[in-house]
Amino acid sequence: MTWLDLPDDTLFGLENLPYGVFSVGGAPERRAGVRVGDLVLDLTAAAAETAAAFAPLLTAGVLNPLLAAGPGVWREVRDSVREWLTEPRYADRLRPHLVPVAEVTTHLAFDVADYVDFYSSEHHALNAGRIFRPDAAELPPNWKHLPIAYHGRAGTVVVSGTPVVRPHGQRKPRNADAPAFGPSRRLDIEAEVGFVVGVPSTAGTRVSTADFAGHVFGVCLVNDWSARDIQAWESQPLGPFLGKSFGTSVSPWIVPLDALEHARVDGPPQDPEPFEYLRTSEKWGLDLALEIRLNGHVVSRPPFATQYWTAPQQLAHLTVNGASLRTGDLFASGTVTGPERDQRGSLLELSWGGREPLELPGGEKRTFLDDGDEVVITATAPGPAGRRIGFGEVRGTVVPG
Amino acid sequence: MTWLDLPDDTLFGLENLPYGVFSVGGAPERRAGVRVGDLVLDLTAAAAETAAAFAPLLTAGVLNPLLAAGPGVWREVRDSVREWLTEPRYADRLRPHLVPVAEVTTHLAFDVADYVDFYSSEHHALNAGRIFRPDAAELPPNWKHLPIAYHGRAGTVVVSGTPVVRPHGQRKPRNADAPAFGPSRRLDIEAEVGFVVGVPSTAGTRVSTADFAGHVFGVCLVNDWSARDIQAWESQPLGPFLGKSFGTSVSPWIVPLDALEHARVDGPPQDPEPFEYLRTSEKWGLDLALEIRLNGHVVSRPPFATQYWTAPQQLAHLTVNGASLRTGDLFASGTVTGPERDQRGSLLELSWGGREPLELPGGEKRTFLDDGDEVVITATAPGPAGRRIGFGEVRGTVVPG
Repeated sequence: MTWLDLPDDTLFGLENLPYGVFSVGGAPERRAGVRVGDLVLDLTAAAAETAAAFAPLLTAGVLNPLLAAGPGVWREVRDSVREWLTEPRYADRLRPHLVPVAEVTTHLAFDVADYVDFYSSEHHALNAGRIFRPDAAELPPNWKHLPIAYHGRAGTVVVSGTPVVRPHGQRKPRNADAPAFGPSRRLDIEAEVGFVVGVPSTAGTRVSTADFAGHVFGVCLVNDWSARDIQAWESQPLGPFLGKSFGTSVSPWIVPLDALEHARVDGPPQDPEPFEYLRTSEKWGLDLALEIRLNGHVVSRPPFATQYWTAPQQLAHLTVNGASLRTGDLFASGTVTGPERDQRGSLLELSWGGREPLELPGGEKRTFLDDGDEVVITATAPGPAGRRIGFGEVRGTVVPG
Repeated sequence: MTWLDLPDDTLFGLENLPYGVFSVGGAPERRAGVRVGDLVLDLTAAAAETAAAFAPLLTAGVLNPLLAAGPGVWREVRDSVREWLTEPRYADRLRPHLVPVAEVTTHLAFDVADYVDFYSSEHHALNAGRIFRPDAAELPPNWKHLPIAYHGRAGTVVVSGTPVVRPHGQRKPRNADAPAFGPSRRLDIEAEVGFVVGVPSTAGTRVSTADFAGHVFGVCLVNDWSARDIQAWESQPLGPFLGKSFGTSVSPWIVPLDALEHARVDGPPQDPEPFEYLRTSEKWGLDLALEIRLNGHVVSRPPFATQYWTAPQQLAHLTVNGASLRTGDLFASGTVTGPERDQRGSLLELSWGGREPLELPGGEKRTFLDDGDEVVITATAPGPAGRRIGFGEVRGTVVPG
């Protein structure tokens, strides 16, 4: 099908084709790219080479102009890339624009406008409730009526590979009268899936669940690093702030919605039936299989299909008050946690609030992250004909503050 | 002192000189401007006319390049504007670049990067506690240890004069089993003061209280519109979201820190003594006199000098976890409320949770805002020699959703 020599089981075949931004060697120039197999197609160069109409959208060093162009152009670019990589007549012209992925440096693929983080896994919310509020109702009373969310810090969203500096802050030791100050002792991860908004909306209007694919460009992986001790002390009454704002890592490759056709499933049944504006007719649950590795060892495999609220519902909620969308808005799913113990998306849950340390092969134990720890989150999803597509990874190493 | 014919009691004399962005007539071009008296100096044109070294910073249609340039350049621009408006030899060259303020359209003066909203008025926090949580402790236990804050939506920060569309959303009627959906019935204001960050900081480092003036460019007025019913139902456990994100209005003129020399006062005494990173040696309390008008009637005069946490403390807290600053970050004080009944910065407080309607002259009553209501927040501060400087206004009218 393609003139490239791709292995049959590649996670980055022509059915995937995620977008990113990269540079080569020490060159400062950032270029749009498409990952295919273990190569990156220099999309900026290829579009110029073929004099594609969309070439001017690919020269900004970020994907934002492409994101803003909307689904018609997104499809045109995707169709063109497929054609280039399929038709042998393009082979000689495009081969110079293919770079081994091992030779590129990936960058944050888009300028993040606003960053919103949801809280849409029922299993995660139940676990958090049991750990933090053992005497209260397990789910907050609003939880099944709306997808809870808060705004995070867009300016500290960083690309995979960026070291995470352990944050300092205030924490309140149990049974102490006053807070203490110092490096966080409960540095955690949250394995999440992020949705990247392309097409803006107008203030004062809503984006319906049916308009989801008209606004959202694609999907990435997110690690919403969390300092649980800082978060616990600061969060009342206005929610998390410094416990989250020191850094949020995202994967470099944005998988377009069109690549997820075979991953789409019904979300879980919702009871009570949500308000009209949250109802959906298309299925936009996504059967993504996440995997979390800590220092090379798989510690969890959260199943994204178990999320209670789907991305179109999240987007409809985000805008139901008339809030406008901008190109580059990022909204994340919240920690993805499945029903099983080895499907939990945070160390908070995996170590049950620090009370049940996780044993790593070799005898090491962890409740929360030590300096030097490396966390890698990956995901795959069903593709056509039993194949799978990959999301790449979001990776980060903790360094002392 | 100036060759301009300024009234002695102008709030916009040479000791003020706030910056903004404006256009004239229907022209699409946005230009940097300085307000002086009832005129706007076209700063973009004046800098070009005088071949000022900083002229290239003023052509972006937003102030961001000027903000990023730092205190040395800010002072250079300010000194130049004063010289231009003082030395008669500039009069003929610059007169063509002075436009009556009544003839300009003001725009959002800067691209907002991240928007953070604090909660730093003790009187406001006490009132909110008494209204919302009458049985709980009056201040949250963390309140006097850290300036509580949350991230708001940067993409819906709008300039004064932009209509505010009443948001729809979920609310939980008292004694009802389930939430209801519809237009907010408790649309409110929050009179705040905003601080505009110019110079960015590096991720993983802190900005000390002493570095405040090295990063912050100036001050504006903020109306953090709030739908109390939406906010009350959604906020647990992650804080306000849609109850705030539909719109935040800011005044068009950014008063530079250098204009506030005579407004600087000690903040209130702080007990307990805050952690080292929150201590200050310079006084950065600000004696701003705010005024809130509802449909033309003054309903409150909040005194900003009563704020418990000062702006340098807020900035140091915001970055103590290593979170970086970007040019265009906006952080707001939180609702400004003084100790007296007629110094409350929100209708929530002025009507005591809706239980004590506010009587307007003419017999009209308000608990929260009706469609068509217009809110104007203004402020002045002490200037040199007993004069005062003005902040202009932040104005908004509620339109039905």
